[in-house]
Amino acid sequence: MSQITSGGMVNAYVPGASTAVTAEEATLISRRQKLLGTAYRLFYEHPVHVVRGEGCWLYGGNGEAYLDVYNNVASVGHCHPHVITALARQASILNTHTRYLHDTILEYAERLLATLPAELGRVMFTCTGSEANDLALRVARSATGGEGVIVTSLAYHGVTSAVAEFSPSLGRQVPLGRHVRTVPAPDGYRGDGDVGRAFAAGVRAALDDLTRHGIKPAAMFCDTIFSSDGVFADPPGFMAEAVAAVQAAGALFVADEVQPGFGRTGHGMWGFERHGIVPDLVTVGKPMGNGHPVAGVFGRADLIDEFGRNTRYFNTFGGNPVSCQVGMAVLDVIEREGLIANARDVGSDMRDRFRELGQRYPVIGDVRGTGLFTGVELVKDRTTKAPDPETTTRLVNGLRERRVLISATGPHANILKVRPPLVFGRKETDVLMAAVAETLAAL
Amino acid sequence: MSQITSGGMVNAYVPGASTAVTAEEATLISRRQKLLGTAYRLFYEHPVHVVRGEGCWLYGGNGEAYLDVYNNVASVGHCHPHVITALARQASILNTHTRYLHDTILEYAERLLATLPAELGRVMFTCTGSEANDLALRVARSATGGEGVIVTSLAYHGVTSAVAEFSPSLGRQVPLGRHVRTVPAPDGYRGDGDVGRAFAAGVRAALDDLTRHGIKPAAMFCDTIFSSDGVFADPPGFMAEAVAAVQAAGALFVADEVQPGFGRTGHGMWGFERHGIVPDLVTVGKPMGNGHPVAGVFGRADLIDEFGRNTRYFNTFGGNPVSCQVGMAVLDVIEREGLIANARDVGSDMRDRFRELGQRYPVIGDVRGTGLFTGVELVKDRTTKAPDPETTTRLVNGLRERRVLISATGPHANILKVRPPLVFGRKETDVLMAAVAETLAAL
Repeated sequence: MSQITSGGMVNAYVPGASTAVTAEEATLISRRQKLLGTAYRLFYEHPVHVVRGEGCWLYGGNGEAYLDVYNNVASVGHCHPHVITALARQASILNTHTRYLHDTILEYAERLLATLPAELGRVMFTCTGSEANDLALRVARSATGGEGVIVTSLAYHGVTSAVAEFSPSLGRQVPLGRHVRTVPAPDGYRGDGDVGRAFAAGVRAALDDLTRHGIKPAAMFCDTIFSSDGVFADPPGFMAEAVAAVQAAGALFVADEVQPGFGRTGHGMWGFERHGIVPDLVTVGKPMGNGHPVAGVFGRADLIDEFGRNTRYFNTFGGNPVSCQVGMAVLDVIEREGLIANARDVGSDMRDRFRELGQRYPVIGDVRGTGLFTGVELVKDRTTKAPDPETTTRLVNGLRERRVLISATGPHANILKVRPPLVFGRKETDVLMAAVAETLAAL
Repeated sequence: MSQITSGGMVNAYVPGASTAVTAEEATLISRRQKLLGTAYRLFYEHPVHVVRGEGCWLYGGNGEAYLDVYNNVASVGHCHPHVITALARQASILNTHTRYLHDTILEYAERLLATLPAELGRVMFTCTGSEANDLALRVARSATGGEGVIVTSLAYHGVTSAVAEFSPSLGRQVPLGRHVRTVPAPDGYRGDGDVGRAFAAGVRAALDDLTRHGIKPAAMFCDTIFSSDGVFADPPGFMAEAVAAVQAAGALFVADEVQPGFGRTGHGMWGFERHGIVPDLVTVGKPMGNGHPVAGVFGRADLIDEFGRNTRYFNTFGGNPVSCQVGMAVLDVIEREGLIANARDVGSDMRDRFRELGQRYPVIGDVRGTGLFTGVELVKDRTTKAPDPETTTRLVNGLRERRVLISATGPHANILKVRPPLVFGRKETDVLMAAVAETLAAL
């Protein structure tokens, strides 16, 4: 299993697992180990060396093109000229902190808040999604006086000390906090019956358990597309009952939109919208600056203001004019290029084509998702639904050899995580599907 | 006192404290409150509205020039063309994460590690100094199996949940962790006798106290210029005995170089160098990317590798090629423009001139620092050394009215924190000293 989950990481490079590594690559790998240490893990049996990116494509040193079907950070496409122009222009004019007045942060805040329900009236800027979730935790604790945190059983919310304590996907070596409870993910493929009801029952049990241990619940954090748990999107609305239970218990619901946010789900800007819920706090990151480190927390005015009155919080780089101009350029591209509709249509077409392929390959047990976030679950047997991580690993690495980059997820590492830039089109889908079919045929 | 420390913050804008705020500024301030909430505090009785930066200067909307004597982030000067060129070029070529091989991160890591003692063999990249200190905490806990943290009594190390717990300068509203002990800062002005011995005695007492409470010490974190405690630099070497005590107790010493690092102290790249010590971990941030969000942890190879083997840590934006090229451009400028020598010479001259001014103004109780980090302590009486925060506030705001930007620090908010970009020269020192003299004369 070490090639499937190395140190708790799916699809990690394991030294010696491939004979395809060139001498030049081996030198780079050994320099990395020597300079950056063991935490810096690579993807694939045969790691990919990239030197250039454009749109949905990454390029190696000899001009070889890799189709990027995995990158949700370069969300409007690698090196989008509109974003780079905004970055370079503002960097040459002014880049300073928020202790001085400047207009850009206000303009950006207005544009962001206009995409959100009226209940969410404030934004605070950070640099990373981890910082955003860490700040949301602080706000939730301040607002509720509670400590308890509820997450799904394979959730990932970030890497600060406090957030890693409620990120069970980091594995057994990173212990959960004693104030943390996990609930089963809303798995409509493996679960029986009503997903929403089952999910809410888990959440109610977790609330009860916290209370019985004398721990006041502060918040439930959910990635609203449940990326690391295995990609669970349907039916829309299934989160509502669980969220209502959390709020009824006096705790906050934090929608972690770092993965689903900024149009990826193909239905509006935010993953929570599909569920008809209004979070108390929303955290955002990765695609927000198309690779530039910008992230943030949106929240109810009363919660953010109460926190701000009592607590000094200042993020040196957070909300600087360069980050804000970059963020606005990303919003421009999402709007101008119609990327939400594109995510909806291209994603839907892609899932249809995976399902078609499933008619020939019974290893494809389930195809699910929304917009340009698709999970394809591989099983040994469609009746028992026994996970097939070995085939998943061979497929992911076979695609890499065909220069198509994706990865896998889920508790058994048997779910393809198909998550391309939002500018992915039909042409790129053709390339992807041809490579998947070819790889499956060759297995 | 509310104008001196608002919500624990020195030099914060308090609504209504000044009649100089224009209608346009008032509108901006009220939009900020409405969009960003109460945590977003401004500097000065009359906040500054900036639209452009260049070198040591910030500019308002009507072209009015403010001399920036406070910004240690835009360390090689606002909008330095070499840094912007590197940023724009790499952003147009490739910006992706570290799960793929690319060369830039290795080149940057080599250049950084070449500035450090041989014992520090690894670098891990984050986006902010808070993330760097949070990661250093995780490494220290992993390495020692301990939990306890020692910091100085008014230390600031960052704003993640875990780091805020050992940042007493955030004020009473942000409680220290039960595993945290504070020690008196190494104050050579107010303290009696040997600074190093007194500091080490405090540290030994904290180690003992942790042990008596059954808490194994994990680390001592020190800002090696003690910025928030009041700027303590001399005599060089005074940290050595305390650091040896920490290491002898099996805990790690973490040098927080977010403030003193990258040449600010005028003696080599790092603040700890003046003390002849070798930290186990070093954290860096603010000036590293001249405003671009890049930060990191340098550490002993054994510590970083043990942590990396056991723990999954991945920072999405950390170490991306854009951040690394920006970081290298900053190193280029420090070298090419001789900024370490400049910091040494200009800083030394500036302190001489503050001391000269002290001959006329007895309110200047002490002038101290190293390189371009100067503390000027204002007192009501040179014998009793009674702090004079009121005069400090009037001086800081009087300078702002003369378009010279500095701030104050220390437990009594009576210490001018003079910390300009490293490109600050004699000409800028003339402007600063003339404004200080004029303001003092007018008080």
